[in-house]
Amino acid sequence: MSTYTARLTALRAQLARQRLDGFVVPLTDEHMSEYVGAYAQRLAWLTGFQGSAGSAVVLPEAAAIFTDGRYTLQVREQVSGDDWHYVAVPATSIADWLGEHAPAGGRIGYDPWLHTRAWVAEASTALAARGAELVAVDTNPVDAVWPDRPAPSDAQLAVQDDARAGLSSAAKRAAIADWLAEQQADAVVLTALDSIAWVLNVRGKDVAHTPVALAYAIVDADGTADLFVAPEKLTDAVRQHLGNAIRLHPREAFADALGVYATKRIAADPQSAVAAIFDRLDQGGATILPSRDPVTLAKATKNPTEIAGHRAASARDGAALARFLRWVEAEAPKGGLTELSCVAKLQEFREATGVLLDTSFDTISATGAHGASPHYHSTPDSNAPLELGQLYLVDSGGQYADGTTDVTRVLPIGEPTPEMRDRFTRVLKGHIALATAIFPAGTTGGQLDGFARRPLWEIGLDYAHGTGHGVGAYLSVHEGPARIAQPFYPGGGPAEPLRPGMMLSNEPGYYKAGAYGIRIENLILVEERALEGGTMLGFETLTFCPIERTLIIADLLTPAERDWLDTYHARVVAVIGAQLDADERAWLTAKCAPIA
Amino acid sequence: MSTYTARLTALRAQLARQRLDGFVVPLTDEHMSEYVGAYAQRLAWLTGFQGSAGSAVVLPEAAAIFTDGRYTLQVREQVSGDDWHYVAVPATSIADWLGEHAPAGGRIGYDPWLHTRAWVAEASTALAARGAELVAVDTNPVDAVWPDRPAPSDAQLAVQDDARAGLSSAAKRAAIADWLAEQQADAVVLTALDSIAWVLNVRGKDVAHTPVALAYAIVDADGTADLFVAPEKLTDAVRQHLGNAIRLHPREAFADALGVYATKRIAADPQSAVAAIFDRLDQGGATILPSRDPVTLAKATKNPTEIAGHRAASARDGAALARFLRWVEAEAPKGGLTELSCVAKLQEFREATGVLLDTSFDTISATGAHGASPHYHSTPDSNAPLELGQLYLVDSGGQYADGTTDVTRVLPIGEPTPEMRDRFTRVLKGHIALATAIFPAGTTGGQLDGFARRPLWEIGLDYAHGTGHGVGAYLSVHEGPARIAQPFYPGGGPAEPLRPGMMLSNEPGYYKAGAYGIRIENLILVEERALEGGTMLGFETLTFCPIERTLIIADLLTPAERDWLDTYHARVVAVIGAQLDADERAWLTAKCAPIA
Repeated sequence: MSTYTARLTALRAQLARQRLDGFVVPLTDEHMSEYVGAYAQRLAWLTGFQGSAGSAVVLPEAAAIFTDGRYTLQVREQVSGDDWHYVAVPATSIADWLGEHAPAGGRIGYDPWLHTRAWVAEASTALAARGAELVAVDTNPVDAVWPDRPAPSDAQLAVQDDARAGLSSAAKRAAIADWLAEQQADAVVLTALDSIAWVLNVRGKDVAHTPVALAYAIVDADGTADLFVAPEKLTDAVRQHLGNAIRLHPREAFADALGVYATKRIAADPQSAVAAIFDRLDQGGATILPSRDPVTLAKATKNPTEIAGHRAASARDGAALARFLRWVEAEAPKGGLTELSCVAKLQEFREATGVLLDTSFDTISATGAHGASPHYHSTPDSNAPLELGQLYLVDSGGQYADGTTDVTRVLPIGEPTPEMRDRFTRVLKGHIALATAIFPAGTTGGQLDGFARRPLWEIGLDYAHGTGHGVGAYLSVHEGPARIAQPFYPGGGPAEPLRPGMMLSNEPGYYKAGAYGIRIENLILVEERALEGGTMLGFETLTFCPIERTLIIADLLTPAERDWLDTYHARVVAVIGAQLDADERAWLTAKCAPIA
Repeated sequence: MSTYTARLTALRAQLARQRLDGFVVPLTDEHMSEYVGAYAQRLAWLTGFQGSAGSAVVLPEAAAIFTDGRYTLQVREQVSGDDWHYVAVPATSIADWLGEHAPAGGRIGYDPWLHTRAWVAEASTALAARGAELVAVDTNPVDAVWPDRPAPSDAQLAVQDDARAGLSSAAKRAAIADWLAEQQADAVVLTALDSIAWVLNVRGKDVAHTPVALAYAIVDADGTADLFVAPEKLTDAVRQHLGNAIRLHPREAFADALGVYATKRIAADPQSAVAAIFDRLDQGGATILPSRDPVTLAKATKNPTEIAGHRAASARDGAALARFLRWVEAEAPKGGLTELSCVAKLQEFREATGVLLDTSFDTISATGAHGASPHYHSTPDSNAPLELGQLYLVDSGGQYADGTTDVTRVLPIGEPTPEMRDRFTRVLKGHIALATAIFPAGTTGGQLDGFARRPLWEIGLDYAHGTGHGVGAYLSVHEGPARIAQPFYPGGGPAEPLRPGMMLSNEPGYYKAGAYGIRIENLILVEERALEGGTMLGFETLTFCPIERTLIIADLLTPAERDWLDTYHARVVAVIGAQLDADERAWLTAKCAPIA
């Protein structure tokens, strides 16, 4: 019996002991985080699935794993079809599937610390149609049968000092207090880990690639706060930084602390706070005010200090990436490079900056057909050599104390085909169309997304992902609330108006299955523009690294697009040139010469 | 005491007789129609307001009139500030205002045949907060004090024969029967007048500019239907056309007919069916299935016969409009033309086609500063002469048995300023950007709207209306469900995917307050395009009439834009030239020559 079959068998035995007829296993943590700590990797432990999004349902006679279009192939490679049904979301939701497959009259368990109330309501309704019931468990049955489950990280917190944050924690909490007064609320429960890190000006190391710590916080109407975090994670420096206005409690004390708000009005975000939190507040007699986390928008609209920090991080990171691209360009045609050796080399160049704290996500290093999977991750099993005639795509970023970067470039190994150049040029035209967009206040990312797609649409092509996501300031590389994406994109971010100070990615792409992938990604900053007719918004591009000229068909560019490209490349030399040695600078200058 | 003050006083006395502490007066009819018959013009009768959208609330001590941004100025000119408060929607909704101003504990009346259930729920909630109550009335108190209220129109129905409709009524009803089977429903209540006209292949004359008849219909799962319409409106030809599958009832029988569906599943559209209908179905014991009117999408995606009919109507209408533009160009500089004399002359040219049945809306004939109000209607009071240095804007359309047209053109009287030409050229660039858009299936109008605005956005300008609305086939000139507009546009139409066969307007504009208005409007048809990378959607332009070349700065156009314009103008000559006499054709050919 394989490891995973044995685990599934063990879980079913545990369900029987807990008198459950099924259990739902999501891939998230108590904070609805996108990336989670090892202790919360229950889906991977149970099924072997290594993707970044998915869920499973285990019933006595059947089990199903739910993944989206990105993982259609991967889930079949990593998860055994003997034990698991493959179900595609959003075509079939977990609730849909439960409604069809749950045993009539059965009790299906869920961990209320891992689901939103909206999910609970939807799944309950679907089960009710079969006379079945959704039941909150007190202890997660997966944990009960996972003997060597990692403990939550005990990494220590670090202070993000005011000179980097641009605003003191006291000032940020005062703004939340003002918001609470407007809402006539007594306190707000903060559960999103990056919100807590941002408000308190601290960073952690508990989640891969995202400098946050496992914690909860409740901010009161007077601007003081309760912080629930493992005491051993708090250094003297952090305790001193937090000061008297932050009352410290162990993380375990949080659930009970929600019970003391009888007759109080407590705000909580239904998107980021799990069902258990609402249940505890309800049981304690609190009046719940469902409202968006008040930190979300404040954190997304970067202040001048955060922007200046990002500029420095971006210049540093761009120089490291340029060195890497030069190395690939020189070495790849000789043979011997692989996707993973490239990852290591890029890491070396970033570490040479002396201030790299982490990558901002697992580097996507994809050659040839691997590039056609937008979220490909090279593993020792999949690792491929870079070969002549391929396109090599690298999507990567660094975490620095002054900023989080995210950038994608593509290089040809040897001679690119005319088709590759045509597609790359169209992706570039879309990238430029978004980079140069001007739009009135109130415009949403969903209204601009088409600008980036139009050059591909014109020949019947498209790309199956959003065009841009928000990026944090030494925080999460994927940050809400705004997105530049199709309006039906999951999460609803494209309906959020873009505001000055928001930092997003600009990353159109094109993917030819079995052949190659193209993506050109820079970060962009929303800023005001005083124009003849009035004040509008536009984007400043923040990322500086050459865009591969041999992949560009200059005749497909309009004069305005050529101007953009030449101006951009001149800025690349100005911003990163000084960090390079003479040979590197000569190479950079040639890569950045005006397009013919 | 003025007429309107006396009417308000009379209504208040009537409210006291009906033991009401207030009443809500919307501008709609029992079908939630956009344009309504004279009998339903209660708001205009009570307040003097002549706009096309608005509402009023009358309380014992206060009265308010609610209008949107289009009517901010007009409402103050037409409605006395002594009697009425002016309230701007959507900033303040009727529910908001009632929640603040209704007498505590009061009974506020509404006519359940003039509001949706969603509105009733919202207003009830707002009133509950004051201990007040929303009360459905049996008889409308406005009607009780409106002595000379017009009777509903007694105009007769006409058959829209299959050769024009492209599909027989039986085939359309069979498709509805299929839809009912899918929904496991027994019948669907149709209340939208254009849906009823389309399904039965009949047309009427009960609503201004829209060839529909006051009626209700209920279509059963077997494809038969009950039609509720005044018997005197039914000619023998119409009775024969309707046949045995359509059971005929007086319109007054409709309310009681809703009471016979105990235990049946009845579909009704919460957007178009009023609260009273849901109430009657509920009272009769029906299970209500709230769902979009199944005719909406079928009617919006034109069949080949409807499209061919539109092409013929459009060519005919374009020739009439071109004759008119030639006449204005020749006569206006001499002086003596006015907005209203132009309306009459344009009507003359359209009537000369011999087949004009109606205009498709009140012609917008606006010179100079009047053009800056996108919905300006010239009246004997406002009628202005066309003067040198002005731009003259004409937005008009015809109802023909084979199609409904809607087109806007702008002419300079004498020499236009460089600014006028710059703005006109930018509007044209936006028009072309939308006309030439290519996009994948599933794309919504909200995703394309920005293409039409971008050339204005780039210099800090915009226009405060949607870019495109659906258009009926000898039906309503404003037809759902799709729109090309900002995503926050009222009604949600921009979130509807565009589908092959949908016919919409393409009408970006620019408005300079106190100075001039610009709008370039053609109708466009969504069609499939086979392209290198796969099948996409695009638009075919359906409207043919010269776009004024003296207002175009050719240097602002890209080569592709010039190609579009020249190709379009060549098509104008080909499509409408043959209908003109030799002098007119010479003029047209000059107007349509390639742009320099």
